[in-house]
Amino acid sequence: MSEKIEFLQPRAAVLQRRETIIGDLLEVLGADGLIHEPRELVPFETDAFVSYRRLPLAVALPRNTAQVSTTLKYCQRYGIPVVPRGAGTSLSGGAIPQEDAVVIGLSRMSKILEVDLFNRTATVQAGVTNLSISETVSPEGFFYAPDPSSQLACTIGGNIGMNSGGAHCLKYGVTTNNLLGVKMVLMDGTVIDLGGKYLDSGGYDLLGLICGSEGQLGIVTEATVRLLAKPEGARPVLFGFETSEHAGSCVSDIIAAGIIPVAIEFMDKPAIEICEAFAGAGYPLDVGALLIVEVEGSEAEMDDMLASIVTIARRHEVKTVRKCQSATEAALIWKGRKSAFGATGRIADYICMDGTVPLSQLSYVLRRTGEIVESYGLRVANVFHAGDGNMHPLILFNANDPVEAAKAEEAGNEILKLCVDAGGCLTGEHGVGIEKRDLMRHQYAEVDLSQQMAVRAAFDPQWLLNPSKVFPLEGRPAA
Amino acid sequence: MSEKIEFLQPRAAVLQRRETIIGDLLEVLGADGLIHEPRELVPFETDAFVSYRRLPLAVALPRNTAQVSTTLKYCQRYGIPVVPRGAGTSLSGGAIPQEDAVVIGLSRMSKILEVDLFNRTATVQAGVTNLSISETVSPEGFFYAPDPSSQLACTIGGNIGMNSGGAHCLKYGVTTNNLLGVKMVLMDGTVIDLGGKYLDSGGYDLLGLICGSEGQLGIVTEATVRLLAKPEGARPVLFGFETSEHAGSCVSDIIAAGIIPVAIEFMDKPAIEICEAFAGAGYPLDVGALLIVEVEGSEAEMDDMLASIVTIARRHEVKTVRKCQSATEAALIWKGRKSAFGATGRIADYICMDGTVPLSQLSYVLRRTGEIVESYGLRVANVFHAGDGNMHPLILFNANDPVEAAKAEEAGNEILKLCVDAGGCLTGEHGVGIEKRDLMRHQYAEVDLSQQMAVRAAFDPQWLLNPSKVFPLEGRPAA
Repeated sequence: MSEKIEFLQPRAAVLQRRETIIGDLLEVLGADGLIHEPRELVPFETDAFVSYRRLPLAVALPRNTAQVSTTLKYCQRYGIPVVPRGAGTSLSGGAIPQEDAVVIGLSRMSKILEVDLFNRTATVQAGVTNLSISETVSPEGFFYAPDPSSQLACTIGGNIGMNSGGAHCLKYGVTTNNLLGVKMVLMDGTVIDLGGKYLDSGGYDLLGLICGSEGQLGIVTEATVRLLAKPEGARPVLFGFETSEHAGSCVSDIIAAGIIPVAIEFMDKPAIEICEAFAGAGYPLDVGALLIVEVEGSEAEMDDMLASIVTIARRHEVKTVRKCQSATEAALIWKGRKSAFGATGRIADYICMDGTVPLSQLSYVLRRTGEIVESYGLRVANVFHAGDGNMHPLILFNANDPVEAAKAEEAGNEILKLCVDAGGCLTGEHGVGIEKRDLMRHQYAEVDLSQQMAVRAAFDPQWLLNPSKVFPLEGRPAA
Repeated sequence: MSEKIEFLQPRAAVLQRRETIIGDLLEVLGADGLIHEPRELVPFETDAFVSYRRLPLAVALPRNTAQVSTTLKYCQRYGIPVVPRGAGTSLSGGAIPQEDAVVIGLSRMSKILEVDLFNRTATVQAGVTNLSISETVSPEGFFYAPDPSSQLACTIGGNIGMNSGGAHCLKYGVTTNNLLGVKMVLMDGTVIDLGGKYLDSGGYDLLGLICGSEGQLGIVTEATVRLLAKPEGARPVLFGFETSEHAGSCVSDIIAAGIIPVAIEFMDKPAIEICEAFAGAGYPLDVGALLIVEVEGSEAEMDDMLASIVTIARRHEVKTVRKCQSATEAALIWKGRKSAFGATGRIADYICMDGTVPLSQLSYVLRRTGEIVESYGLRVANVFHAGDGNMHPLILFNANDPVEAAKAEEAGNEILKLCVDAGGCLTGEHGVGIEKRDLMRHQYAEVDLSQQMAVRAAFDPQWLLNPSKVFPLEGRPAA
């Protein structure tokens, strides 16, 4: 798909000054703080979107906020584009560089600065991985809630940039609901602090604005996040239904009844078969769709919530209800779900959409998604966070067949437009990045995009931070 | 205190054109859509902060978004300041006008446009009162969660401007956590739509930015809010402690254990005595501090949560635990709490602070608050939302004694600075408005304020929307 992606024209003045820039940045960052040899730049040429590869001008690996500040100040002075990067796990191309850009990699800023159990907060550097926060506080009985599938690798800085989610965000919210404060460097090198360990605050909610801004408003170097107490217990339960429509309606009714389990994950028949063949999770194979509903709390709380859910599921002619009897069984059930993308990758190439819809539209959008993919002669597997309407249709295709690849991409675009037209949006947790940049016009009117770009200009008037992302290239103000 | 409040210099060009402006606006809004006779302007001269009174130039009462748009466009063209107003219940002076300002009152836009129970949302015009949303959906078993004490009168538009809270926001979050979308008119008359019935969305989180922006970024004319299912049951429980420190530490430990009741309200001895004398709520009078903890859910859930809370309270030497036995008793307990401000007003004048602190600082800040007020020779009563650290010390004084009034104000400022210095902030739910404008410098560095003002300028470059609020008058860009 790479040939179709357009980028902003590289800045000739920057490319011409390449050697000087490298020399200057070496002085700021030291010999081991800057990567500039082409061979060593290769790991930074793309991210998990992998549809475009381009070596950046250089990669800065700052060790502290002061170095980030000095580097940005320098880049602003000479009009050098900057691409912030965490672990490079972006599924939408958010960390892909261009040849005139300096990548700022936060991987060396990976210290946990403070754990404050009394106030239930952790303050960490931006390069800390998502999972390591939970691992650090687990012995004390706490955890950090947002759990993207890439949580072993992805960093908290990247999570903030993309407002990342995960299976357990139904109950606990996504990154923005668990972020209390950041230290951030503006493009001119100024360091600002937003938020803290308190409720709300005076003035505008710039912290909320930063979360999900895809590295275009500044570079976050430290974050204070909320820690939660681990529940007494947790239990996944399998609900098998005749059709996807039955399962979809059941999800809507559970949420409409005000019941919020920790997770409601959905798998259609193709997804069940793929995952069962891979993981042997013990999923029922005689059903058309499966819900994995996880409840948690004390035994009394779990029993109480499960009873209410079973009552609702019966109204949707549930065929199978299987409560899990042991920790081993629970682990297997989750292993099957969590390996869905990997298991799918073994049988076909796929692209994963991230459209999100109002729950009332779940059944309709599922049916139309099937029809759209079928009309292109392709297959689809659906496995997603149903409780918050965050769909992930996996469109299966053969990447070695350019015609099929083009069809898959077209089908994907049609599905995202379907989600928007159903009152939903392009992305629930993966971000816009490069992938959905040109579809933004389908979601937003020109005036909405202009207002967003005006806010951006209030932070980065030269449009240097992650410049080719989020907004359509046409129609944006001249750089 | 009014003589101390400074405003921006009224714009002479606007005052000189007063008659023309009124004539033009009459054409836009019709004879019954504009108030301009001085006698009729009196109800709009102040709000619930009542420390300053000034008649506005006129009050526009638009009937729809189009009229708001035309009015703003006109005001932008002629450089006329605009002050948005809901019900005028602001405790921080957010709706107080100036003599060169056109007030835009949203009271006539009070329709509930759509109730979508399937997606659990309500779409309403900005002038709808907070309580009327819950009243409308109550027969179906739903409610709108944020519940400011003024909920009978205050409007959803005002709630959005101030990011309002309330006693039950501990579990359900404040306005920003329950707001899904808005229709908003920018100062140049452009109408934009932000958010919707879906999770997250691509692009920047402008919806979060708007919530709490005190009417300075645009005028919200419609809002889509989240509806929640009413719990099966709810039960307030009284916990009496020896001292405020014991009660404060107990609150911290409840939250640190990951237990989130619907409400944890705190009353110290003076507050208990004042409320009991007024409401006869049956509060214990032999304790130094009282917590009202409300749990909700099924009987099993409530019993389970209460058992955990009682265990923690015992560690803090709780003297009295009184579960409420009937609906009448529950109503009395809440009546006592909710009448706290009114009951206090019967025995003295008071000012109410809104500082918010990390929970670990609760006991310390309570003790220091007492010491500060005592050092001014005044008395204080504390009655507040303890679970989220949102303190409301009521400083009692005699408003007819200017020396005492000045002392009360000084003590209040010292308490707010104490909250900030303890890692907290100036305001949890009442907003900055005029009241805390000059204290913003204590919370924010110049660079933080500049960045906020740059964002503001991206929406309203001429600084016409609610101009004298939120930021210190000195240091802002020239109008």
